[in-house]
Amino acid sequence: MEIASFQSVISKYQVIFFDAYGVIKNYKGLIPGIEKTFDYLIQQKKEYFIITNDASRSPEQLAASFNKLGLKPINADHIISSGMLAKEYLDLKVKDGIVAYLGTENSAHYIESSGLKTLPVSAIDETNINEVNALVLLDDEGFDWYDDINKAVNLLRQRTIPAIVANTDNIYPVTKNNVSIAIGGIATMIESIVGKRFLRFGKPDSQIFIFAYDHVRSFKPVTKSEILMIGDTLHTDIIGANKFGLDTMLVLTGTTLPADAETRIRSTGITPDFICESAAINGIA
Amino acid sequence: MEIASFQSVISKYQVIFFDAYGVIKNYKGLIPGIEKTFDYLIQQKKEYFIITNDASRSPEQLAASFNKLGLKPINADHIISSGMLAKEYLDLKVKDGIVAYLGTENSAHYIESSGLKTLPVSAIDETNINEVNALVLLDDEGFDWYDDINKAVNLLRQRTIPAIVANTDNIYPVTKNNVSIAIGGIATMIESIVGKRFLRFGKPDSQIFIFAYDHVRSFKPVTKSEILMIGDTLHTDIIGANKFGLDTMLVLTGTTLPADAETRIRSTGITPDFICESAAINGIA
Amino acid sequence: MEIASFQSVISKYQVIFFDAYGVIKNYKGLIPGIEKTFDYLIQQKKEYFIITNDASRSPEQLAASFNKLGLKPINADHIISSGMLAKEYLDLKVKDGIVAYLGTENSAHYIESSGLKTLPVSAIDETNINEVNALVLLDDEGFDWYDDINKAVNLLRQRTIPAIVANTDNIYPVTKNNVSIAIGGIATMIESIVGKRFLRFGKPDSQIFIFAYDHVRSFKPVTKSEILMIGDTLHTDIIGANKFGLDTMLVLTGTTLPADAETRIRSTGITPDFICESAAINGIA
Amino acid sequence: MEIASFQSVISKYQVIFFDAYGVIKNYKGLIPGIEKTFDYLIQQKKEYFIITNDASRSPEQLAASFNKLGLKPINADHIISSGMLAKEYLDLKVKDGIVAYLGTENSAHYIESSGLKTLPVSAIDETNINEVNALVLLDDEGFDWYDDINKAVNLLRQRTIPAIVANTDNIYPVTKNNVSIAIGGIATMIESIVGKRFLRFGKPDSQIFIFAYDHVRSFKPVTKSEILMIGDTLHTDIIGANKFGLDTMLVLTGTTLPADAETRIRSTGITPDFICESAAINGIA
Repeated sequence: MEIASFQSVISKYQVIFFDAYGVIKNYKGLIPGIEKTFDYLIQQKKEYFIITNDASRSPEQLAASFNKLGLKPINADHIISSGMLAKEYLDLKVKDGIVAYLGTENSAHYIESSGLKTLPVSAIDETNINEVNALVLLDDEGFDWYDDINKAVNLLRQRTIPAIVANTDNIYPVTKNNVSIAIGGIATMIESIVGKRFLRFGKPDSQIFIFAYDHVRSFKPVTKSEILMIGDTLHTDIIGANKFGLDTMLVLTGTTLPADAETRIRSTGITPDFICESAAINGIA
Repeated sequence: MEIASFQSVISKYQVIFFDAYGVIKNYKGLIPGIEKTFDYLIQQKKEYFIITNDASRSPEQLAASFNKLGLKPINADHIISSGMLAKEYLDLKVKDGIVAYLGTENSAHYIESSGLKTLPVSAIDETNINEVNALVLLDDEGFDWYDDINKAVNLLRQRTIPAIVANTDNIYPVTKNNVSIAIGGIATMIESIVGKRFLRFGKPDSQIFIFAYDHVRSFKPVTKSEILMIGDTLHTDIIGANKFGLDTMLVLTGTTLPADAETRIRSTGITPDFICESAAINGIA
Repeated sequence: MEIASFQSVISKYQVIFFDAYGVIKNYKGLIPGIEKTFDYLIQQKKEYFIITNDASRSPEQLAASFNKLGLKPINADHIISSGMLAKEYLDLKVKDGIVAYLGTENSAHYIESSGLKTLPVSAIDETNINEVNALVLLDDEGFDWYDDINKAVNLLRQRTIPAIVANTDNIYPVTKNNVSIAIGGIATMIESIVGKRFLRFGKPDSQIFIFAYDHVRSFKPVTKSEILMIGDTLHTDIIGANKFGLDTMLVLTGTTLPADAETRIRSTGITPDFICESAAINGIA
Repeated sequence: MEIASFQSVISKYQVIFFDAYGVIKNYKGLIPGIEKTFDYLIQQKKEYFIITNDASRSPEQLAASFNKLGLKPINADHIISSGMLAKEYLDLKVKDGIVAYLGTENSAHYIESSGLKTLPVSAIDETNINEVNALVLLDDEGFDWYDDINKAVNLLRQRTIPAIVANTDNIYPVTKNNVSIAIGGIATMIESIVGKRFLRFGKPDSQIFIFAYDHVRSFKPVTKSEILMIGDTLHTDIIGANKFGLDTMLVLTGTTLPADAETRIRSTGITPDFICESAAINGIA
């Protein structure tokens, strides 16, 4: 397993896609040295985008959270989130009625679409259940798990409607040793219980990459071979971008630990084009 | 699909195993006419046992709940529950320390074993986590889902201990149209998130049939071909008993509706030896 | 379940995507009346494309097979096959060496890419195994199942390389009652045995819809809402196109029988925008 | 991870259950030193049995194969195979007609049962298909994979009959680096394609342990805590015996390599009571 120099790898590409968690930041804050990476990209006139499986906040709120951590250049235009795909789906395919959701009120605000009314699952009752035309799972917080997960199950048993989840992660880290179940894990449980297929947006699914690719091409002519995807997770970032035809870089600052990287690549068969210790410009995080 | 006469079928067997839910009772109470069935079995000197995937109560409490519904002859000796297998496992294989559990305090009381201390997952902390030598999932009530399911996930990430669930059901009915997620559904979610294998006791697994068969033979010499299992669910009662070598009867008073029975048998390949409308002595429920 | 008039539905769209098997043809030949549909589309100046999970033949060969059945207007430019995505992947991501394949020699000819050498799995041995940089599963014929499926398993155990399958179907019909295992079914077996993730191109994955959408836009400005996908299978054609944001029509001339359609839609939650008896212009097939 | 002394561990038990492959023998022959183990067990008057997921040969043939390798004391009474459970199932539950099989003629001879006729899948045709009352998968050899796996799929689509597999392994080793797909892997593929549930006999399922336990108790009174199961595979031997309530020993001469044992135990949560380098009496294999 050869460790490449971050700077020499990115010099070959015109556009860089970054995963957020484990590449740019972690539970403690920014990955050390990552600010310099963005300064360098700006100086080198390379385009950069953050491709994130996050449906709990709007692009503006996600950008603001990076700014607050100290990454000043990031704005909403740099964000491609799986929540944007969920919203596109609602815009295109759900014409009217109520969109029921599990998540915070804030997360629901973001998916609001003209002609649709959003309501938390807790507010669904006999008087409005027949108007519910979609269920969206946005965040693992903002609702009572016992009451509302059970209500979501019964909603899907009674109504033949699309169920959407924009985060395929099962867990997310909260401290060095502890994790929390993510909304993707809850979606998997509900899916297996009701026997219905959820629409899953977000990496590794190709659709978030075409969304990002279309977005880039709208202001800069570019081919797939000029784009590099940087991620910390083999089975989302790397396999998804590989399959879409992008070159890929695995960094070792997140879910794939330096000691495990080689074993995991061999056991899964998911092979990045490059491995770097970190996406920070000075190497080791 | 030929519908057999209940009375003529049971006349061929010495011992009758009954599933509880959907065969003897449902969310409304006893299946109409089922009392006469037990009077008849007693009169005919046939042995009967209730084989149930329930780990939330002791055999005594389960028997009492049948008595309360009006089924007077049932006592604790007639009950074989998956919880009894979980308890046997703890007795045989967990020598000391703490057994953490998800469920009600009452359910935990039942699995208490000499030398072991039971504690709800909510009471596990840094001071005692290293003494936890097993996790048992007993009931979907009695704990805070958000806090304690997340705690159970982190417990299994930190401790290499057996995780036990004695109910393989994902849901249970609460009204005509509504269901609740059962502890088996929660177990499946935790299992897939932590990537560890739960020990699952209860139908369709052979071990509960072995346990019942051993129990019967301890006071009456009997062979497998003299035992009939009656159930309402193909993928637990029927496939489990078929595989163990017992003859099986599907009744249509529970999860398998009369209109679906033939299709389900054909699509799953799980074939009961007999189909009856009900286990009530007078036929139609 | 309302059955719509085919002609009135397609009048609302500028571009029509057709699945092939079960929509245009079946094991007996063309779906009766389907020729008139294409005459009508040409007359109405609507664009049409066939979106097919077939990697066993080139677009030219697929078009020729439709011509031979009597569908004269179809040419290679109307074909979008999952094999084209597999080829794009090899072009973009496999720089050199050998591409080993399971399939006919003819199927392999099609994926040939500059700089790559294709070899059947049967020709892989100790002298060339280290040059194998990808494995592609193309067709269920053209190789010895016992010898070559076992060889493919061992190849993937020894080499960390991408494994690609461009057909997600498990079976295909060969007569009214009989099916054959498709290469997708073999891929699933190999995948589970070696524990590595295959790259799967073809419906329901979004990437084939992206490929088709990009292709259409290269000569005609069109939005997603102006495109209709017509398919016979809920879990490939319909869910895939729904998720991509296209409107969808289920036809009842293939895998979804008229008597089952409503039940299947309700049990899977996969809902087409329209249901028609057939894609033939005169209605009933 | 503490490595125990084999001799001191077995001194605590009255009955020893051995897995065959990876414990007593491997692809090269006997595990070095294993003969002395059996001499010692005989001298110490301990009972021993070989519990094996093998349905391709009779107990007599399996015993003969051990004798031929040099393990003289083993006879048919020491063998408990999953094939014996498949045979018991046929005896108890399939009253008449044809049992179709995939495997060698020799393997089929073994499952012959009074009143049943065995026929290879290749011999099933329109004249006899309606008499087929069970399908049994016995061995990965003795049939044409392409023809007969496809025929087995169509048989299960046309007949609602039990399908039985007595080997849950997906692969078996044939040389140091190469494996072959086992009949269990083929069963999984057929099962997923036809959507029907196979009856799976053999470890980790409890039924083979109760079969062995009943067998032992028929001539020696013994409790579960006096029995030790020795195996090389966590997810069959160890989890199965643990769950049945037996103590377990993992040996490192088979599928679990010394370097991986600790990681695998931690990642699966499947914990043996003891770990020994080998079941050979002198320690290191």
